[in-house]
Amino acid sequence: MGAAKSSCQGFLHYAFDYETPKTLVVPSIAAGVVFRFTQLLILLYLVGYVCIVQKAYQDTDSVVSTVTTKVKGYAVIKGSANTSSPQFRDVADYVIPPQGDKSFFVVTNMIVTTNQKVSHCPEIPKPSTLCNQDSQCTTGLEDLRGNGVRTGRCVNYSDTVQTCQVLSWCPLEEDTGPNKEALIDAAENFTLLIKNSVTYPKFNFHRRNIMPHINSSYLKTCVFNSSTDPHCPIFRLKQIVSDAGEEFQVMAVEGGVLGILIDWTCDLDLWASQCLPKYSFRRLDDNNKSRVLAPGYNFRFAKYYKSPEGTESRTLIKAYGIRFEVIVFGTAGKFSMLPTLVNLGSTLTFLSLVPTVSDWFLLTFTKKRDFYSKHKTTHLRDEDEEDEDENKQSVKKKVFLLFFRLVCYLIFIVPDSFFFCRCPWAPAMELNRIDSK
Amino acid sequence: MGAAKSSCQGFLHYAFDYETPKTLVVPSIAAGVVFRFTQLLILLYLVGYVCIVQKAYQDTDSVVSTVTTKVKGYAVIKGSANTSSPQFRDVADYVIPPQGDKSFFVVTNMIVTTNQKVSHCPEIPKPSTLCNQDSQCTTGLEDLRGNGVRTGRCVNYSDTVQTCQVLSWCPLEEDTGPNKEALIDAAENFTLLIKNSVTYPKFNFHRRNIMPHINSSYLKTCVFNSSTDPHCPIFRLKQIVSDAGEEFQVMAVEGGVLGILIDWTCDLDLWASQCLPKYSFRRLDDNNKSRVLAPGYNFRFAKYYKSPEGTESRTLIKAYGIRFEVIVFGTAGKFSMLPTLVNLGSTLTFLSLVPTVSDWFLLTFTKKRDFYSKHKTTHLRDEDEEDEDENKQSVKKKVFLLFFRLVCYLIFIVPDSFFFCRCPWAPAMELNRIDSK
Amino acid sequence: MGAAKSSCQGFLHYAFDYETPKTLVVPSIAAGVVFRFTQLLILLYLVGYVCIVQKAYQDTDSVVSTVTTKVKGYAVIKGSANTSSPQFRDVADYVIPPQGDKSFFVVTNMIVTTNQKVSHCPEIPKPSTLCNQDSQCTTGLEDLRGNGVRTGRCVNYSDTVQTCQVLSWCPLEEDTGPNKEALIDAAENFTLLIKNSVTYPKFNFHRRNIMPHINSSYLKTCVFNSSTDPHCPIFRLKQIVSDAGEEFQVMAVEGGVLGILIDWTCDLDLWASQCLPKYSFRRLDDNNKSRVLAPGYNFRFAKYYKSPEGTESRTLIKAYGIRFEVIVFGTAGKFSMLPTLVNLGSTLTFLSLVPTVSDWFLLTFTKKRDFYSKHKTTHLRDEDEEDEDENKQSVKKKVFLLFFRLVCYLIFIVPDSFFFCRCPWAPAMELNRIDSK
Repeated sequence: MGAAKSSCQGFLHYAFDYETPKTLVVPSIAAGVVFRFTQLLILLYLVGYVCIVQKAYQDTDSVVSTVTTKVKGYAVIKGSANTSSPQFRDVADYVIPPQGDKSFFVVTNMIVTTNQKVSHCPEIPKPSTLCNQDSQCTTGLEDLRGNGVRTGRCVNYSDTVQTCQVLSWCPLEEDTGPNKEALIDAAENFTLLIKNSVTYPKFNFHRRNIMPHINSSYLKTCVFNSSTDPHCPIFRLKQIVSDAGEEFQVMAVEGGVLGILIDWTCDLDLWASQCLPKYSFRRLDDNNKSRVLAPGYNFRFAKYYKSPEGTESRTLIKAYGIRFEVIVFGTAGKFSMLPTLVNLGSTLTFLSLVPTVSDWFLLTFTKKRDFYSKHKTTHLRDEDEEDEDENKQSVKKKVFLLFFRLVCYLIFIVPDSFFFCRCPWAPAMELNRIDSK
Repeated sequence: MGAAKSSCQGFLHYAFDYETPKTLVVPSIAAGVVFRFTQLLILLYLVGYVCIVQKAYQDTDSVVSTVTTKVKGYAVIKGSANTSSPQFRDVADYVIPPQGDKSFFVVTNMIVTTNQKVSHCPEIPKPSTLCNQDSQCTTGLEDLRGNGVRTGRCVNYSDTVQTCQVLSWCPLEEDTGPNKEALIDAAENFTLLIKNSVTYPKFNFHRRNIMPHINSSYLKTCVFNSSTDPHCPIFRLKQIVSDAGEEFQVMAVEGGVLGILIDWTCDLDLWASQCLPKYSFRRLDDNNKSRVLAPGYNFRFAKYYKSPEGTESRTLIKAYGIRFEVIVFGTAGKFSMLPTLVNLGSTLTFLSLVPTVSDWFLLTFTKKRDFYSKHKTTHLRDEDEEDEDENKQSVKKKVFLLFFRLVCYLIFIVPDSFFFCRCPWAPAMELNRIDSK
Repeated sequence: MGAAKSSCQGFLHYAFDYETPKTLVVPSIAAGVVFRFTQLLILLYLVGYVCIVQKAYQDTDSVVSTVTTKVKGYAVIKGSANTSSPQFRDVADYVIPPQGDKSFFVVTNMIVTTNQKVSHCPEIPKPSTLCNQDSQCTTGLEDLRGNGVRTGRCVNYSDTVQTCQVLSWCPLEEDTGPNKEALIDAAENFTLLIKNSVTYPKFNFHRRNIMPHINSSYLKTCVFNSSTDPHCPIFRLKQIVSDAGEEFQVMAVEGGVLGILIDWTCDLDLWASQCLPKYSFRRLDDNNKSRVLAPGYNFRFAKYYKSPEGTESRTLIKAYGIRFEVIVFGTAGKFSMLPTLVNLGSTLTFLSLVPTVSDWFLLTFTKKRDFYSKHKTTHLRDEDEEDEDENKQSVKKKVFLLFFRLVCYLIFIVPDSFFFCRCPWAPAMELNRIDSK
C-alpha cells in the first residue's frame, strides 16, 4: 500500500514536475545584437517572402472551365468575285466543327477536287509511279504513300507521261501545295465571341468572362484590345493573330494552330471581385518551315452526293486554315489553416537555430569569450576512470575510435551539419586545456 | 609527434564529447500542468486536424479520364405528326457531333432554310438595309452584321419594302428567333449512357464508372436517380436538367450548356473499394436573359446537295439545343513518406515552443517565481569592466545603442516574436534588482 | 528622470542581454556516438530521400498541351475487291472527325443502311413488336427501345411474320451485330502523325514532341518503335494496339477506345535538354465482354441526299471502330526557394530532436548515468512548503490530480509524445530517491 502510494506519487512527480534548462544571462551587447538581428532577418523572410511573395498561407485549387465560341462573318472567295459564278462562304461553310467548341478551325485556303467517284485512273506522276509497261505496276500493291490500289496496268496520264493505274476516288487530287495567297483572305475580319465559365470546386467559386457589370450595349459593339478593351469577349481574328506575333495573311496560306490563353489566376482572400480573366495569344505549332515535317495545318474532308441513278460522288476538300484553341488555366489561392501552419512551423525552426548562431558568435568573437565559456559550459572530469579504461580496453577502444573517426569525417563534409556542432573551436580549446592539465 | 597525437585527441574530444544542457527540475504542479496541457493541445491538433481532417500524410494526384457517351431516342417534330409529311428524327439526326464525345449537343429547336443557292437576293429589312434607290447601296460593302456582299442595287423585298441586294446564299435565313415551343420536345425522354474510365497515374489506380459488381440485367433497365440509383450510368435528359435546377421545356427553346460533373475524389489508403463516382449537374451558361449577350446556345450548320446539273445547294439549319459537357474531376490521396514527415516536422516545431510558454508561465505567474528564477538563471556580473568601457567608449556606444533600440522596436511590433523573448518581465525585474544593487 | 533612465536601461538590458543555456560537456564516447550517429541518419534522410528521391527542393507545375493528329492510308473494303463495284475508302471517309483533333475515330467495321426515307414500315421482329391484329399496336406509342412511332397498324414483315407498323426512317436498320471480321482490316497499316506542343506556364518552358535535333529526312521515313525509334512521331496503328496488349483484328470487330499517353514529366533544373516525351499505350474501355453493357465502341451517323424532286434520303452508317485518345500529362519540377526552405525546416526539426534522444540514452544506458544525471539535473527541494500545502489544500489538490492523471494517460498512449518526456526513468528514480530521503 505504501509502495503503491509511493510509486503513484513518483509517477505524478514524473508527469508533472517541470524540467527547464538552466540559463546564463550574458551582458554582452554584441551577442545580444547578433541574436536579435538574426531573429529579425528570419522574421523579415517569414513576412516578406513566405507571406507576401509566395502567399504560402493559401490553399490552392485548379480551374475547371467550360468554353463556347461563336464565329461571325462571310467572305467571297478570292478571284471569284467578278466571275459569272462568285463563290460565297459563310459561317456554316468555313468553321469546322460548327458547334462552337473550345477548339475550332477556320478555313482560309483550300484545294477542291470535285466530282470524285470510286473508279480507275492513272496515278499522279512521281518517280515511284512512272511506268512504261504493265509489268512495272505490281497488281494490288498498297503503297501507303500512293493514292490507291494498283490494278497492274500502265496507262496514259497525259500525252507524254505514263503512270500505273490505281483504284481510287477519281480524278485524283492534284496536290501542288496551297495557293500562294489565301483564298479566303477576308477571314481576318471575322469576329469571335468567347463565352467562358470557370469554377474552383474546392472554394465553390464560379465566374464568367462576361462580367455582370459590363452593360449589354457595350458588348454589342466592342472589340477586344489588350490595352483599351481588355474585358470585351469579342475578338477580331486578325487582332488575335497579330497579338501572337504573326501576320494573318502569311499564316493563312499554309495554316497553323493558335492558342487563345485565358488566365484565371486569382487571389480569393481579399480581391475576389478582382478575379478577372487575362487573355493572351501564342502560336502553338512550329512555324520554322525549314525544319518541320508537314508545316502549317491542314486536313481533308469530303461532301458526299448521290446521282439520281444512285452512284455516289464526293467533293474532296483539302482545307488549310487556322485552328484556334481556347486554353483556360489558372490557380486560385485562399487562406487555409494547414499550409499556414506548415509554413509557419518551418520558419519557426529557423528561429530555433538562432541561439546556436549566437552561441557560436559569443564563444568565438567576443573579447571575454573565455570568461563566458567558463560560466556557460561545465566540463565533467573523469580522467582517472578513463585512464584505467584505456589501460584495460586500449586495443578494443582504438578500433572503435578509428571507425567513428571515419563516421565523423563523413558528417563534417556535409556543410549543413555545421550549425549543429555547437561552438566548435572554443570548447575544443577548453577541452585541450583541461586535458593538458 | 606528441602535438599531432594531442591535436587528434582534441579533435576526438570535440567530435564525440557530448554537450547537453543543464536542467532544473521544478516541483511546480502548475507549471507541469501548463507544460503537459500545451503539449496535449498541439498533439490534438496534429492528430485531429492535420491527420484526420486534412489527411496531410497523403500524397495527392489528379485524375486522368476518358469519357464516351451514347444517346438513344427518337422524336417526331412538333406539329408535323398529323400532316402528310411527318418529320421524324433519330440519334443520327439530332446529336452533334455523332461520335460520342464527352461534349455533345442535342438539337431541341431549329430554324431551317431549305434550298439555299449562292445568288443575288434582297437583304432582310432592317434600318441599315432599307433603300429607295441604288445609290444608297454601296457596291461591295461588307458589313459583317449584314448577310452578304452588296451588289449596289436596290430591289423589292416585298410589295412595299425595298432593300439592298446582296450576293449570298439565297433565300436568306429569316431569323425571327426560335419557336416559342421547342420543336423536338420529346428530347426530354432521350436516354444517355456515360462510360467513364479514370486513372490516377501516380498510384497506378484504374477504375470505371460501370462497376464490376453491378450486374448487367440491372444495367439494361436502370435509370439514374441521385437517391435510389446513384450508380446507374444511364440518365434521362429531363432528369439531368431538373437536377440542375432548370426546366427542360424552358431550356429547350433557346438552348444552353449543361454540365454533368463526375467527382472521383478518393482516399486510396483504406477505402479504395469505396472509390465511387459522385454525379452532380449544373447549368454552365448564364441564364439571366436580361443581361447577357446572345443568351442560350445555338449554332448554324448546313447539309449540302448537288442537282443533277451540278449546281450546289444547301439546307441551312440554325440549331438551338442543349450542349451536355461531362466534366470529370477529383484528387486521390494515398499515404506517402514525404508529406507525412514535412507535416510532422512542422507540428513538432510547435511542440518545441512548449517549454518557452511554460518557462514564461513559471517565471511570471507562480507564487515562488523569484525562487525558481534564482535557481534557473545566473546573471553574469561584469559591471566593473562595463563601467570602464562606458567611460572610454561612451559616445561610440550611445550611437550604437540608439540604432539598435530602433531595431528592437521593429522586432517587438511583429507579434510572432513574442514567444522568443524568453520570460520578458521576470528577468528584466531581476536584472533591475541586480543592477540597482 | 532617473527612473526614466533606469527603465530605459532596464529595457536595453532586457532587449540585448543575451540569455544562453548552461551546458555540461560529458566525456562519454557512447553518448557522443549516439548523438553523431542520429544526426548522420537524419542528414542521410535529408540528402538521400528528401533531396534526391523526392526532389522536395523543387516547385512543380502541370503541363498545358496542344495536340494535332494526321492519319494516312487507304483501304479497299473486304470482299468488295474483286466485285464489279469495289469500295475504296481513304482518310476523308474513315476518320471522324476529320480535323485532326487529339481524339479521333477510325472506322474499322460497319453496318450500312442505304436509301432511308421517312415513311411507314414494319418493325424489326422481336417479342414486343410481333402482332396479329391492329389492336395490339397502340397508336402513337413511343417505346424508346423501338425504332419509331407506331401508326396503330399490324402489317406483314415477311410472308410469315407480322409486326407493328412504325413511322421512321425506312427501311429500318437490321442490326444483327458487327461482321465477324472487320471490313476495313487494312486499317492496321494506317499511319498516324502526332504533333504535340507543351508548355509549363509557371516556368515559361515550351517544347514540342518533334525535336529540332531530329533531321527531317529521318522523320519522313521513320516509324515509332518503343525500343529502336522512341522519338519518332509517326505511329503505325497496328503497333499502337499491340503495344497496348491487344490484337488489332480482334479489337477492330467491335471497336474500342485506345489511349496514347504522352508523359512529359521533367526535371528542369539540370536536364532541361533531356525533357523528352515518353509514349505509352493503354486500352481505356472495358474489354471484358461478359460483364459490360454495350461492349466495344460504335456510333451511328448519316449522309443526307436529296432527289431532284426534293425528297430527302439518307445513308445510315453504324460505324464500329477504334477511338484513339491522345492524353498528355506530366509535371515539371524546378528549384524554388519556398519548398526548399519548408522541407529543410521540417528536417531541421528532426535534428533538434537528436539531443532528446541522446539525453535519454545518456541517462539510461551509460554506466555512469547517476554521475551524469547528478551534474546535469538539479532538483529543487521545497518539501516543507509542499507538506504545508498538502495539509491545507489536500481535498482540492486530490481532485485536481485525479483529473490530470487522466490527461496524462491520454498523452502517454499517443506514441509520438514519447520523446517529449525527457529521460523518463532516470529522473523518476532520482526523484524517488530524493523524496524518500
